[in-house]
Amino acid sequence: MMEHTRIKDLLKSEEFGKEIIVKGWVRTFRNNQFIAINDGSSINNIQAVVDFENTNDEVLKRITTGAAVRVKGNLVESLGKGQRVEVKATEVSIIGDSDPEKYPLQPKKHSLEFLREIAHLRFRTGTFNAIFKVRNALAFAVHKFFNERDFVYMHTPIITGSDAEGAGEMFQVTTLDLNNPPRTEEGKIDFKEDFFGKATNLTVSGQLEGELAAMAFGNIYTFGPTFRAENSNTTRHLAEFWMIEPEMAFYELDDNMDLAEDLLKYVIRYALDTCPDEIEFLKNRLLEEEKSKPQNERSELNLVDKLNFVLENNFERITYTEAIDILQKSKPNQKKQFKYVIDGWGADLQSEHERYLVEKHFKKPVILTDYPRAIKSFYMKQNPVDAQGHETVRAMDILFPGIGEMVGGSQREENLDKLLARMEEVGIPAEEMEWFLDTRRFGSVPHSGFGVGFERLVLFTTGMTNIRDVIPFPRTPNNAEF
Amino acid sequence: MMEHTRIKDLLKSEEFGKEIIVKGWVRTFRNNQFIAINDGSSINNIQAVVDFENTNDEVLKRITTGAAVRVKGNLVESLGKGQRVEVKATEVSIIGDSDPEKYPLQPKKHSLEFLREIAHLRFRTGTFNAIFKVRNALAFAVHKFFNERDFVYMHTPIITGSDAEGAGEMFQVTTLDLNNPPRTEEGKIDFKEDFFGKATNLTVSGQLEGELAAMAFGNIYTFGPTFRAENSNTTRHLAEFWMIEPEMAFYELDDNMDLAEDLLKYVIRYALDTCPDEIEFLKNRLLEEEKSKPQNERSELNLVDKLNFVLENNFERITYTEAIDILQKSKPNQKKQFKYVIDGWGADLQSEHERYLVEKHFKKPVILTDYPRAIKSFYMKQNPVDAQGHETVRAMDILFPGIGEMVGGSQREENLDKLLARMEEVGIPAEEMEWFLDTRRFGSVPHSGFGVGFERLVLFTTGMTNIRDVIPFPRTPNNAEF
Repeated sequence: MMEHTRIKDLLKSEEFGKEIIVKGWVRTFRNNQFIAINDGSSINNIQAVVDFENTNDEVLKRITTGAAVRVKGNLVESLGKGQRVEVKATEVSIIGDSDPEKYPLQPKKHSLEFLREIAHLRFRTGTFNAIFKVRNALAFAVHKFFNERDFVYMHTPIITGSDAEGAGEMFQVTTLDLNNPPRTEEGKIDFKEDFFGKATNLTVSGQLEGELAAMAFGNIYTFGPTFRAENSNTTRHLAEFWMIEPEMAFYELDDNMDLAEDLLKYVIRYALDTCPDEIEFLKNRLLEEEKSKPQNERSELNLVDKLNFVLENNFERITYTEAIDILQKSKPNQKKQFKYVIDGWGADLQSEHERYLVEKHFKKPVILTDYPRAIKSFYMKQNPVDAQGHETVRAMDILFPGIGEMVGGSQREENLDKLLARMEEVGIPAEEMEWFLDTRRFGSVPHSGFGVGFERLVLFTTGMTNIRDVIPFPRTPNNAEF
Repeated sequence: MMEHTRIKDLLKSEEFGKEIIVKGWVRTFRNNQFIAINDGSSINNIQAVVDFENTNDEVLKRITTGAAVRVKGNLVESLGKGQRVEVKATEVSIIGDSDPEKYPLQPKKHSLEFLREIAHLRFRTGTFNAIFKVRNALAFAVHKFFNERDFVYMHTPIITGSDAEGAGEMFQVTTLDLNNPPRTEEGKIDFKEDFFGKATNLTVSGQLEGELAAMAFGNIYTFGPTFRAENSNTTRHLAEFWMIEPEMAFYELDDNMDLAEDLLKYVIRYALDTCPDEIEFLKNRLLEEEKSKPQNERSELNLVDKLNFVLENNFERITYTEAIDILQKSKPNQKKQFKYVIDGWGADLQSEHERYLVEKHFKKPVILTDYPRAIKSFYMKQNPVDAQGHETVRAMDILFPGIGEMVGGSQREENLDKLLARMEEVGIPAEEMEWFLDTRRFGSVPHSGFGVGFERLVLFTTGMTNIRDVIPFPRTPNNAEF
């Protein structure tokens, strides 16, 4: 049995006068009297009031920011502002010291850039406590959502011998001696000698394996790490990130969009319901941050209002063709303010176009469907050629304000011949994909799925602006610290 | 809106006479009349009775094992044995064919070895439906357990620049051109040119990063993939497996053991409560499988009884020193039947010894504590040297019948000087671990944690005997298929 009570529980307690023990870390110590203690259970600290006249000087000196303390005392109503309860300390002891000359976190505002350098300590700040509590709530809500709907959670493989999906550059995984690898007679690396007897990579997506499972369980989802070895140093890209990928038999594109919209709303609502203090803190953080920006760059809605706005409105659903029409007629296109001017059907949409649609035109999340076949993946279901001769696929991307692509998905091509023809067109050898093709050979059915970039979801829900701040230890080009 | 109803819901329905639509895959088709259809939502099939005299011959011919069908009809009470309801079909159509000459799954018993070769199709069998439903239930229960206790789910990194933990051989991760890697002036591989600017590996454990988070949030857990590049081709090892690793500030060893025992019991109970049909199926599968074994090799308890036995009994908690005493006095040791005869304190326990303790001596899960310092990891808390001069650490391993080590954990060494001394002793350079050591420099507190091998948990709960059968696509030496 633990002898101490969590601060989260103390802050809710009504048992005034009760003797309790608190253990936690010192956030601040004021006037040799007021210790703000945090144990991580709540974003809020509890204040312990020390009777400094009857406390050993040696102990008082060691109550420094970052030190771990044990405080015994009585829970009392607080006279101070902003807190309901506090602890009248009768006994204070130091569990672990923190040398104030060396401890990098001081009771002042640190920049996010500085905190990224000390990612192993940044969890100890209010901002990162709030971010990772929200992240935790979102992750649990994902599992809860799918569990309530009887989806089966599948752990698709991380190490893969297949590199066919082509979703991005891959990391190689090997146990060969890189200094002196075994070579074939032709002088090439002999991957037969490698751990798996062939060349392997880190997965870019669990979708293809997910499809195999959906053809047996009906509805499945994955939630695991995925990887891109792309040299993009942006605020929205990571080399290692977590993705949620549901895959559903008998779902067509509309069902797919409904599920994706339901999922996003469900998990954001869950975060709002279960992390009100954390989101309030993050809302204020963002308001504070934006004070230094010119008026026209500030958010129109605060974080809480923005999240509620998403919950209360239907996502706009338009086809790529409609989007092109809107973009062509738009002011920034006509005035050539876009870096890539849209001059007709077929163009791949750039971030600037997506932002225009979402942030300026519709001012809410937008689901874009039926993209040109040529710019989308081989496994997407091909639409009949339309009256204008356009070849499209049943893709759907969900675009979010400030984030861009939150979800990418599609109905899948279930027709074996069409799939084979498309694979040949884009140069994917069928013989490497027999296992995938078997889903279309034996009891093929219409099916759909999508992928949610989990960190982008956390980014949106926390109002943070750099994806490195919403994953514990970000992996980016030239950075794999901790 | 879906036009069809899931079989899981139909099997529970009381709405006799109602017109419904079923979509799913044919498991069997008997007498040109009875289709057993499964859509993955339940381990049980629904039977559709076809009016074959009024059904097109071409359609009847295409109702083959593995084909996807759509059946419209009325829900009626079943006259057949073993089912409450069935569908009186008024309309049958084929969604996707399955050529019976080519479809590898036939309505007969296939060996687990054969099914492993076609892991992309094995989900379509009753056995693997049951296994992965139980796996799903266990995974959800893990999150539910920690969520109810306010633990924060942390995604610790998969790619790591640190190889200090030494829990096992690691896979290298690189984007270098292996055929012609950049080299330094001394002729060594120049990892500065690699994606992360240094050599990186796949993680063997999230523990060290978990400790960083526990020092801020109090209680955290990870649940993610971990890797071992070890050439062990056994029924209990995988190169890629999922691990659950909680880490708790202010927990001492007893608290750690209590939490681990609570967790294991909670998730097994959850599986029993939510997957009764699946576990009943797996129980019968195991009884069937064991029929071919000699009496003395069969399980004493059936699967359900075995799981209930674990729930109803306290795990035996003994020290390593006590275990050595039991083993030394044991018959197989005295008769030299052990391959490794125990001749005194200090020996590392082998699988045969663990099995003796768990399966013969105590006949229930055993928690072994306080192992010799020399055979355990550097980060474990050092006990005071005892009267016999034994140096031990506050480790705890939980051993399960038929499985061996299910959990490995310890209280952590929170004293900086002791930790540094131990690191020097085992040759871990402190300068590579500054971030880890900071937890002991700034507000160090007693803390503990453990790791649960998730596949071993699934193995135990499903009564399966080969770990390759409880993960969707196993990765083992020379095998990274699908």
